Amino acid sequence: MKIGILTSGGDCPGLNAVIRGIVLKGTTTYELEFVGIRDGWRGVVDGDFFPLTRHEVKGLSKVGGTILGTSRTNPYEGPRGGAENVAKTLAKHGIDGIVAIGGEGTLAAADRLSNDGIPVLGVPKTIDNDLRATDYSFGFDTAVNIATDAMDRLRTTGDSHQRCMIAEVMGRHVGWIALHAGMAAGAHVICIPEVPMSIEEICDLVTRASDRGRAPLVVVSEGFKLKGMDQAFSDKGLDAFNRPRLGGISEILAPEIEKRTGIETRSTVLGHIQRGGSPSAFDRVLATRLGLHAADALVDGSWGQMVALRGTDIVRVPFAEALGELNTVPLQRYEEAAALFG
Amino acid sequence: MKIGILTSGGDCPGLNAVIRGIVLKGTTTYELEFVGIRDGWRGVVDGDFFPLTRHEVKGLSKVGGTILGTSRTNPYEGPRGGAENVAKTLAKHGIDGIVAIGGEGTLAAADRLSNDGIPVLGVPKTIDNDLRATDYSFGFDTAVNIATDAMDRLRTTGDSHQRCMIAEVMGRHVGWIALHAGMAAGAHVICIPEVPMSIEEICDLVTRASDRGRAPLVVVSEGFKLKGMDQAFSDKGLDAFNRPRLGGISEILAPEIEKRTGIETRSTVLGHIQRGGSPSAFDRVLATRLGLHAADALVDGSWGQMVALRGTDIVRVPFAEALGELNTVPLQRYEEAAALFG
Amino acid sequence: MKIGILTSGGDCPGLNAVIRGIVLKGTTTYELEFVGIRDGWRGVVDGDFFPLTRHEVKGLSKVGGTILGTSRTNPYEGPRGGAENVAKTLAKHGIDGIVAIGGEGTLAAADRLSNDGIPVLGVPKTIDNDLRATDYSFGFDTAVNIATDAMDRLRTTGDSHQRCMIAEVMGRHVGWIALHAGMAAGAHVICIPEVPMSIEEICDLVTRASDRGRAPLVVVSEGFKLKGMDQAFSDKGLDAFNRPRLGGISEILAPEIEKRTGIETRSTVLGHIQRGGSPSAFDRVLATRLGLHAADALVDGSWGQMVALRGTDIVRVPFAEALGELNTVPLQRYEEAAALFG
Amino acid sequence: MKIGILTSGGDCPGLNAVIRGIVLKGTTTYELEFVGIRDGWRGVVDGDFFPLTRHEVKGLSKVGGTILGTSRTNPYEGPRGGAENVAKTLAKHGIDGIVAIGGEGTLAAADRLSNDGIPVLGVPKTIDNDLRATDYSFGFDTAVNIATDAMDRLRTTGDSHQRCMIAEVMGRHVGWIALHAGMAAGAHVICIPEVPMSIEEICDLVTRASDRGRAPLVVVSEGFKLKGMDQAFSDKGLDAFNRPRLGGISEILAPEIEKRTGIETRSTVLGHIQRGGSPSAFDRVLATRLGLHAADALVDGSWGQMVALRGTDIVRVPFAEALGELNTVPLQRYEEAAALFG
Repeated sequence: MKIGILTSGGDCPGLNAVIRGIVLKGTTTYELEFVGIRDGWRGVVDGDFFPLTRHEVKGLSKVGGTILGTSRTNPYEGPRGGAENVAKTLAKHGIDGIVAIGGEGTLAAADRLSNDGIPVLGVPKTIDNDLRATDYSFGFDTAVNIATDAMDRLRTTGDSHQRCMIAEVMGRHVGWIALHAGMAAGAHVICIPEVPMSIEEICDLVTRASDRGRAPLVVVSEGFKLKGMDQAFSDKGLDAFNRPRLGGISEILAPEIEKRTGIETRSTVLGHIQRGGSPSAFDRVLATRLGLHAADALVDGSWGQMVALRGTDIVRVPFAEALGELNTVPLQRYEEAAALFG
Repeated sequence: MKIGILTSGGDCPGLNAVIRGIVLKGTTTYELEFVGIRDGWRGVVDGDFFPLTRHEVKGLSKVGGTILGTSRTNPYEGPRGGAENVAKTLAKHGIDGIVAIGGEGTLAAADRLSNDGIPVLGVPKTIDNDLRATDYSFGFDTAVNIATDAMDRLRTTGDSHQRCMIAEVMGRHVGWIALHAGMAAGAHVICIPEVPMSIEEICDLVTRASDRGRAPLVVVSEGFKLKGMDQAFSDKGLDAFNRPRLGGISEILAPEIEKRTGIETRSTVLGHIQRGGSPSAFDRVLATRLGLHAADALVDGSWGQMVALRGTDIVRVPFAEALGELNTVPLQRYEEAAALFG
Repeated sequence: MKIGILTSGGDCPGLNAVIRGIVLKGTTTYELEFVGIRDGWRGVVDGDFFPLTRHEVKGLSKVGGTILGTSRTNPYEGPRGGAENVAKTLAKHGIDGIVAIGGEGTLAAADRLSNDGIPVLGVPKTIDNDLRATDYSFGFDTAVNIATDAMDRLRTTGDSHQRCMIAEVMGRHVGWIALHAGMAAGAHVICIPEVPMSIEEICDLVTRASDRGRAPLVVVSEGFKLKGMDQAFSDKGLDAFNRPRLGGISEILAPEIEKRTGIETRSTVLGHIQRGGSPSAFDRVLATRLGLHAADALVDGSWGQMVALRGTDIVRVPFAEALGELNTVPLQRYEEAAALFG
Repeated sequence: MKIGILTSGGDCPGLNAVIRGIVLKGTTTYELEFVGIRDGWRGVVDGDFFPLTRHEVKGLSKVGGTILGTSRTNPYEGPRGGAENVAKTLAKHGIDGIVAIGGEGTLAAADRLSNDGIPVLGVPKTIDNDLRATDYSFGFDTAVNIATDAMDRLRTTGDSHQRCMIAEVMGRHVGWIALHAGMAAGAHVICIPEVPMSIEEICDLVTRASDRGRAPLVVVSEGFKLKGMDQAFSDKGLDAFNRPRLGGISEILAPEIEKRTGIETRSTVLGHIQRGGSPSAFDRVLATRLGLHAADALVDGSWGQMVALRGTDIVRVPFAEALGELNTVPLQRYEEAAALFG
């Protein structure tokens, strides 16, 4: 059996460890043959494949990024896209099935291809931890560690200058990174997309931390919206989504907090450093295990499913179960954390 | 209600985060009063208490060790020990219950005291991850990260000199740290207490890695025993347990591997650095959550139980469930990893 | 003799190690007495002092920030400012001299006070490494390590997406952090204030890196200006200095590079994380040694001077020697680095 | 001109950065041609060469170890050794000169070959910082950072258990790593080969730290000897040098300190982790600059010399100047540090 492997969507620490896990177990235990697919679904559409042997994956568990490259191509778009063309391309290269490592969009495409008869196995990838059907996804722990380390640093400079420090972390639709990094670093305010807050509520928490003699530390997901923010923007004839990409929500918050509380406030947008570099040990183990189990699933012919973490076990779930609704932060988990700064 | 908190047994990154979690939620949400108990059960026996307020726990989530101190004292030993004396001491200081943060031994004592009528709530602590009834315990992730980082370093020096490098990690009775760090760092041999191996089996794996052009990387739990090792020692009139404490199993293995394979071999005993320093983000979050839930359990009067992680939830389990058998590495988990180097 | 210690200006990893070094040697070797001055020159002006003993400085070598607090107050401003008032305040509290730990502005004030008869000793502090008369200043090595680590992370995500990644680092007037982090991380373009470049020159280097199959990595000092940038801004009726504070030069460069080269480009402004957190070992040693030698200089009455690093020695230099001109990157050092990407 | 590059002796973080610096500048600025020599002088003797182009050195500044491999072969030994044979081998492969990156032994061989007419340029490499004629050598800063980080960890576990913790670091003949890591981590005792101490002196410092409420932290170079230790060993008919290799001096000290002071004492031998892994930014910059200047020296024909750091400059010095005496820790530097714990 000859299997193609692709990584698609934003990159994520642990992708290479998954690839290594699949190839090592697939070749040594099951005598499968593998090809790498370049740049996600683009490589499928373009027939851009290369041999992937044990030699290519050595030492990869600690290497960030993906040796396969990635893109945001949709396999149903373009003249060579669509299930029929994909089936032809795979047949032409003698490829019997695909492992697609990716997030919501990638898995939705995989689901559709699968329903259209292409053998696809999924491995969930989301640095934001926004996929249902898996307790955690690799990359998330690394991102939380990087954000926590950054916030530890911001705290000392905040303390020295008696400033309010804001860290803006990843999370367009869900607040897991902010929630975990905020708990880990001891933030005094955690702002996540799932829980809108008003500027008054935020300033109240900032002031209370300051009154206790602390330099207020705020963590905010990039996708957080102030209560009434859309209204305020449209009142001014502005579009909140038209704000400069990197000049994120933290840069809207900082001057507002400073103005209202009188506490000097500085913001830092952590940005791309959260998704790069060597994965944490947790992510390397999780990614490797997902890869090993993906190899098992390949020989079992578990097409149309993805491997996932449940408790300490790796299980298989149908694509449909992972898709649709996002894995948002439950209110109860937010309130649990809020007890620390409430 | 006035509650005493103690930490007992070997220290572990995350202890301070638990303490902080209990005190923050206990004081702000529930208006509980807390005292710190110095040096584990010793402080209970000696009545060595001090007030523990929000002020004392500020900034603690990132601080390694325990501000309460720790010891290996058994509360049933000595002239002031025993449930009756403990009850009197607590009554004298107006203490209504105890939170005991500790491992197997600590929780066994807590269970016995609980059965003897002392209100005790448990929080599981084991860097080795050897407690049942919790998916993971805090400290373990930090230890795995430190061991993985050390093994990443050993690999580069092994590669430069074409040497076999051995890392000896913690784990007297269970091999979780070796298993996870070995998977994360891409070890070619993983030796754990649960799976005895002969020196021939180890050397075979070492040689195969070397034949593939790799510098063999071996991780061994301190509690690993070679097949037939006890016999070999007793034949020489030696006791394997009498070997120098820090000159551990890796120092027995290194010269044997070098002699049998002809590959220069070096060993490093990671030792105490695995249990010190700032906890990883994962451990800070887990420890904080256990502390927050312990505060809930206190007001619920859930004496005789401990808080624990199951999947992504914090639950309560009776002491009895956590004790007795150790949480060893299942053979299936070992074989999963062995597919990487088999 | 009773000595006041202050830290002034932006905070910097290593400040606490200096304080610890002065107090440990000053109290145990020389029996000096110390007071901490709160928030830089503000504390001098306001007479805001507190006792500083061996106990207060324990464990400080690894702690980021400053336990004394800091501000940007000028001791010659305000109703209680000026040399005469300062002299009175010090006399009132029995303070015989001041150690001022700070940068260009702080040392200029120290020099003026010194000329006006106030006994002041200086310790150079600049994270940007922009002070003459010392080979390196503490904080710089930590900042370079943080920036290098961030760029290592940006490289892996750049490689996965075949993107050009830009890291904006500190350095308003000098490019030392960009130069060193750029060399360390293997940047393909280094943009510093001392060496203006045109957007065409930058794009040429970016394209050449891309043509060699690399994901272009660019590091830019916050104070870098494009050749002709001021002109371009004024042509549009804009002021280059009015660009949003954190939306720095990298956010001007990114879209320009993407537009001109066709290579997707992302920028990250590292910001405040570069100045926070635990100092590197190099900075701890340098800061501690400066502190120890400052204690020697106090008993020698070396007022009007500052301690400084020359080669591997700590020496004393008059304030005047350190002030005036900034320690910019010599063209020859830039060309040395440019050989790596030229 | 065709140049061979070799790395010899123990590996060291930064070797790859030197190689990259030489090759990048040598090929792009000077159009030199390079070959890699495998495993140090062994590759010279055996004629084991391979082409080394810009492609081979990409991304190497952050990679630990050496892509060339290393050995402890002496080029004057064996049937194919000696200057005459080496000259023939180089001529046969058209190699015009050698860059030898190594320590005392390597440079001594380089000096002898150079005197025998072989064109050799040196780059100093010593993790112990024991070479004269260079202010610092690459690898040293990384080792000090690793040792400091380990000691920060040991401190927290020592504090929790009120234990004396001993860290044994590299340094057979000189104490630089112990001195710098000890200052950086705030050790209460620093034991180096240059300054013999008696067990009584050590215990006195340990007790004094303990009396001040601190958990005593001791750092000891592997080459430290107790006053009278050799005598004591020979009295027992033992040879101090016959003690087990990894069971080092710290394992002799720990039980003695515990017995004499009554303070529980634990030792950790850091071992090989100090020389592995990614170099610090300081070491990457230093190593890269040495490589760049080595390329300059090659075109200048500066055979018989080595590049070295003086202050902030890279200079050239004759081999003879670097050899002979070791760069030991001056008594004055030790006393400077001793003021912190005296």
